[in-house]
Amino acid sequence: MAADCVYSIIGKKPFDLVIKNVKIINVFTESIVKGDIAVTGDTIAYIGKIDFPCTARREIDGAGRYAVPGLIDAHMHIESSMMAPARFAELILACGTTTVAADPHEIGNVCGAAGVRALAEASANMPLHVLMMAPSTIPSAPGLERSGWSVGAAEMEEMLDIPGVAGLGEVMDFNGVADGDERLLGVVEAARKRGVIMDGHVPALTGARLQAFRSTGVDADHTDMSLPRAREKLAAGFSIQIQNSFLAKDLIEYVDQFPLQDRIMLITDDVPFIELIEHGHLNANVRRAIALGLRPLRAIRYATINAASRLRLYDRGAVSPGYKADILLMKDLEEIKPDMVFSDGQLVAENGRCLVRMERYKFPEEFYHSVHVLPLAAEDFALKTDLPPEAKEALIHVLGCNEVTTRTKNERRWVPVRGGQLDITGLVKVGVIYRHGCGLEKAPGKEVSLGLLAGFPDFQGALASTYAHDSHNLTVYGTDESDMALAANRLIEIGGGLCAVQDGKILAEVPLPVAGVLTEGEVDELKEQFGDFFRAVERVGLRHSHPMMFMTLMTLAVSLEIKCTDMGLVDTLEKKFIPLVVEAR
Amino acid sequence: MAADCVYSIIGKKPFDLVIKNVKIINVFTESIVKGDIAVTGDTIAYIGKIDFPCTARREIDGAGRYAVPGLIDAHMHIESSMMAPARFAELILACGTTTVAADPHEIGNVCGAAGVRALAEASANMPLHVLMMAPSTIPSAPGLERSGWSVGAAEMEEMLDIPGVAGLGEVMDFNGVADGDERLLGVVEAARKRGVIMDGHVPALTGARLQAFRSTGVDADHTDMSLPRAREKLAAGFSIQIQNSFLAKDLIEYVDQFPLQDRIMLITDDVPFIELIEHGHLNANVRRAIALGLRPLRAIRYATINAASRLRLYDRGAVSPGYKADILLMKDLEEIKPDMVFSDGQLVAENGRCLVRMERYKFPEEFYHSVHVLPLAAEDFALKTDLPPEAKEALIHVLGCNEVTTRTKNERRWVPVRGGQLDITGLVKVGVIYRHGCGLEKAPGKEVSLGLLAGFPDFQGALASTYAHDSHNLTVYGTDESDMALAANRLIEIGGGLCAVQDGKILAEVPLPVAGVLTEGEVDELKEQFGDFFRAVERVGLRHSHPMMFMTLMTLAVSLEIKCTDMGLVDTLEKKFIPLVVEAR
Repeated sequence: MAADCVYSIIGKKPFDLVIKNVKIINVFTESIVKGDIAVTGDTIAYIGKIDFPCTARREIDGAGRYAVPGLIDAHMHIESSMMAPARFAELILACGTTTVAADPHEIGNVCGAAGVRALAEASANMPLHVLMMAPSTIPSAPGLERSGWSVGAAEMEEMLDIPGVAGLGEVMDFNGVADGDERLLGVVEAARKRGVIMDGHVPALTGARLQAFRSTGVDADHTDMSLPRAREKLAAGFSIQIQNSFLAKDLIEYVDQFPLQDRIMLITDDVPFIELIEHGHLNANVRRAIALGLRPLRAIRYATINAASRLRLYDRGAVSPGYKADILLMKDLEEIKPDMVFSDGQLVAENGRCLVRMERYKFPEEFYHSVHVLPLAAEDFALKTDLPPEAKEALIHVLGCNEVTTRTKNERRWVPVRGGQLDITGLVKVGVIYRHGCGLEKAPGKEVSLGLLAGFPDFQGALASTYAHDSHNLTVYGTDESDMALAANRLIEIGGGLCAVQDGKILAEVPLPVAGVLTEGEVDELKEQFGDFFRAVERVGLRHSHPMMFMTLMTLAVSLEIKCTDMGLVDTLEKKFIPLVVEAR
Repeated sequence: MAADCVYSIIGKKPFDLVIKNVKIINVFTESIVKGDIAVTGDTIAYIGKIDFPCTARREIDGAGRYAVPGLIDAHMHIESSMMAPARFAELILACGTTTVAADPHEIGNVCGAAGVRALAEASANMPLHVLMMAPSTIPSAPGLERSGWSVGAAEMEEMLDIPGVAGLGEVMDFNGVADGDERLLGVVEAARKRGVIMDGHVPALTGARLQAFRSTGVDADHTDMSLPRAREKLAAGFSIQIQNSFLAKDLIEYVDQFPLQDRIMLITDDVPFIELIEHGHLNANVRRAIALGLRPLRAIRYATINAASRLRLYDRGAVSPGYKADILLMKDLEEIKPDMVFSDGQLVAENGRCLVRMERYKFPEEFYHSVHVLPLAAEDFALKTDLPPEAKEALIHVLGCNEVTTRTKNERRWVPVRGGQLDITGLVKVGVIYRHGCGLEKAPGKEVSLGLLAGFPDFQGALASTYAHDSHNLTVYGTDESDMALAANRLIEIGGGLCAVQDGKILAEVPLPVAGVLTEGEVDELKEQFGDFFRAVERVGLRHSHPMMFMTLMTLAVSLEIKCTDMGLVDTLEKKFIPLVVEAR
């Protein structure tokens, strides 16, 4: 009630909470106010020295710590953590994130509108405030992959009607928009007509094409924020959302001096489970921005009030009267590690531990049966190349990989042919199997679409995943066909997840039973599973600085340069299928 | 359509308008871009050099002029101009204001929710974009005056349902809020629950009381912006809206250096007709801010994109792709006089003249019969003081006036008594008669509530008005009781307005037939009427720098220090009635 705070200030009603003796970050003035914070219900009534008669139901000694607004993440995907919302919320609340705008793009690819609705329901009524953004680009590469769903204008309308959905999720097919793709523009228009928040994904456009994209009403981007791109986007009226990988000294310097601050924010986009555990959530980005030279109060502003404005949350993002009492108490402004986290006036986390146990959401039963693939045999992973028996060598396309990025080179190389069979020694197979029999194409997957990876000479065994961007088809990497079949079948059996196999033995697995992309397990359990799995990955010989990212991105046909989907090998620059074997001689 | 701009950029559809060769103000970067502006439908598709193949239905040579976003006034009252929306819109569009947030507080006082609805309807579908704010404080001084309506939570709900109403109009009883007045807080809560825009009016609060006010969710103020007040309000999370009278060098300097720019704006609040004609509208304030030292691009920002953000208009306030094509072309950035005004891509004004003729809105018939007062006689204006026949002198309360402000001093002075009658030589009577017989109290007014003004020794005759803040009761100033009755009866006869009488003759009148506060006349006609009326005021001897303001504010019981309402003389500091005669001897 608007009235309650007033009643507390005039002494007619006790404050519910008074946090004494804190250094309050004022995000409006970028200054620090010493004093107390008085809260009535879920709302901050007063900040400063309390020098008027009043009472309080509960008093906490802030012990001179900083009081920072709860962090607000204006663009992220819950599924990147592979955790269901309840456990995820517990984890990031403890890091100080109290509000997120989540784009359920992954579960949407698998389960369609039902997935979006389920994630919205699973994320409702938690101390973590979750706004859902309706995923707009499903499948990411129509015609080049099969997903569990397809989003057109009608589907966008349907999603925007779901309670908790606040806007259009990142429009990823930027070229499609700039080229005037009718279906995609229909999706965008459905959101524009409603006047909701509209998020973009524009790594590569510039000049008139960037403006064409902006002219549709989409007005935020979180992709390429190298300095020239960030400048152009700010000038074109975009809100720029800086993720960790684009935090750089030159950008920090530029935004810090930029005369108009309100359209700049820090966001996480994707934070894998292990990074969450090791570094934290949005607080890690704020910490990094500060380490790179951004003044702390400004960095905090980028992750609080600016994000709130973007998300049209007019009562969040500040420790100030009239704002919801989402407050972090912390000892210093470099680490951004909250000792205490308040959400809506309730103490919800302390010393990195969530104090509140979120109720587990029961996903619809069919979400637990999302890997619609017939059991596979070793021979399903054999190359069927149909080479003339006399051929001695063949020119083939391979995904040229390295140990650092997930960008592949479209390499062509000659390999020996023996008895009509390619000699692929030193290469790793990737097999992708359509798994959305409950989706648009009502038949379980069976056919294995095969590609070859160069760059991992030590690989031996198999790694499988049902988490594979963006269609999340069953994806298996391997050098041994039996191991590949075993890994795949294990995931079919457990309803999805990650699996590592060597010499006919399952080394490790991470079950992701919800839609094949999320676990409902406990954090400690998951930590162990991931620890085991990463050791197994190491043992199998996938040497990469980000093995999970690598494993989940070799299927993404909108990333460069060559990828393998359930429908075939794709030249992603040319957006066309290419054969594995170009010629033989 | 989101798609149309894209189609134009890729050459599939002509642009509807290209303005060539302009210097475009970029409000995001506060910089100037030389180039062209391309518009499709009502939306800007592209700015900059057009270096791609395309066609245009219409091309205009900008001749090197500046292209500025249409001005947006985040807080104002249409009724202050005394013009119905159609003619008013024509006038201010020509000044470059393309969007306003209007609080129909005056017509709401007279006609209630029907007044708000009528003004919203009258303001719809014009090239001037009007957001209505639901007046929140009617009557302004409950118990001290009678108005045509009374706003509680239910009435607020009713207004917020009216199409075109975007939020809570300025909450003027700031003391009531800070004191915890339940009825008023119910009104505020009705708006807060809906999450709409909430405007305040907080000239006098500071410290905990200011925070109490802010804690209710009301987050803008446009009143006292002396530097210390403005600083405190910014720090407390208010948007500050600076009106002309608070534009000062020290404030300008402060806001110009303020690190966070987005919550600062320029607004008009009240612009009387004559000022509109002579100086312009919001452009006059921008001009003045620049003259006082604010950098022009920042001043423009305060009156465009910042106001748009406040009003949650995400596609107005910038000359940038994706924004509605509300564009002003002007030769320089000091005068802010647009040569051409575009609204939604249409040329609507040129060289100070509106090119579009707005359709006249037919107000409900009863609006034209809003002065419910029985015919008055000279003796109705006689003082009935009931003094003992032997009294020689009496101590009376007078409104101590001066020639500059509308603030009165609560003066007590001894005047001679002769034959039981006060000798009020040198004083001017003010008589206020309840006129809302169609409102809450269903009976025509008859009783004249009388007060005395000191400060106008030359006054001779009578001036009457049905426009009198905030209840707009029939108000008559005069030294001659017959002249007063004549002026009053004339306004009763013509349905309201302004009237000047001397020596039994009507000198001039300005009819305001709509609710007694608005005219539907043409600008030229009104100019003549006002010219005549001001000359008559001069002749009657009301010497004041702002005679209209003066005449309409002696009834406002929420302004200082002593005022006269239809219910009696009010000590507005103590909020209580006081007698005309204190004692006699």
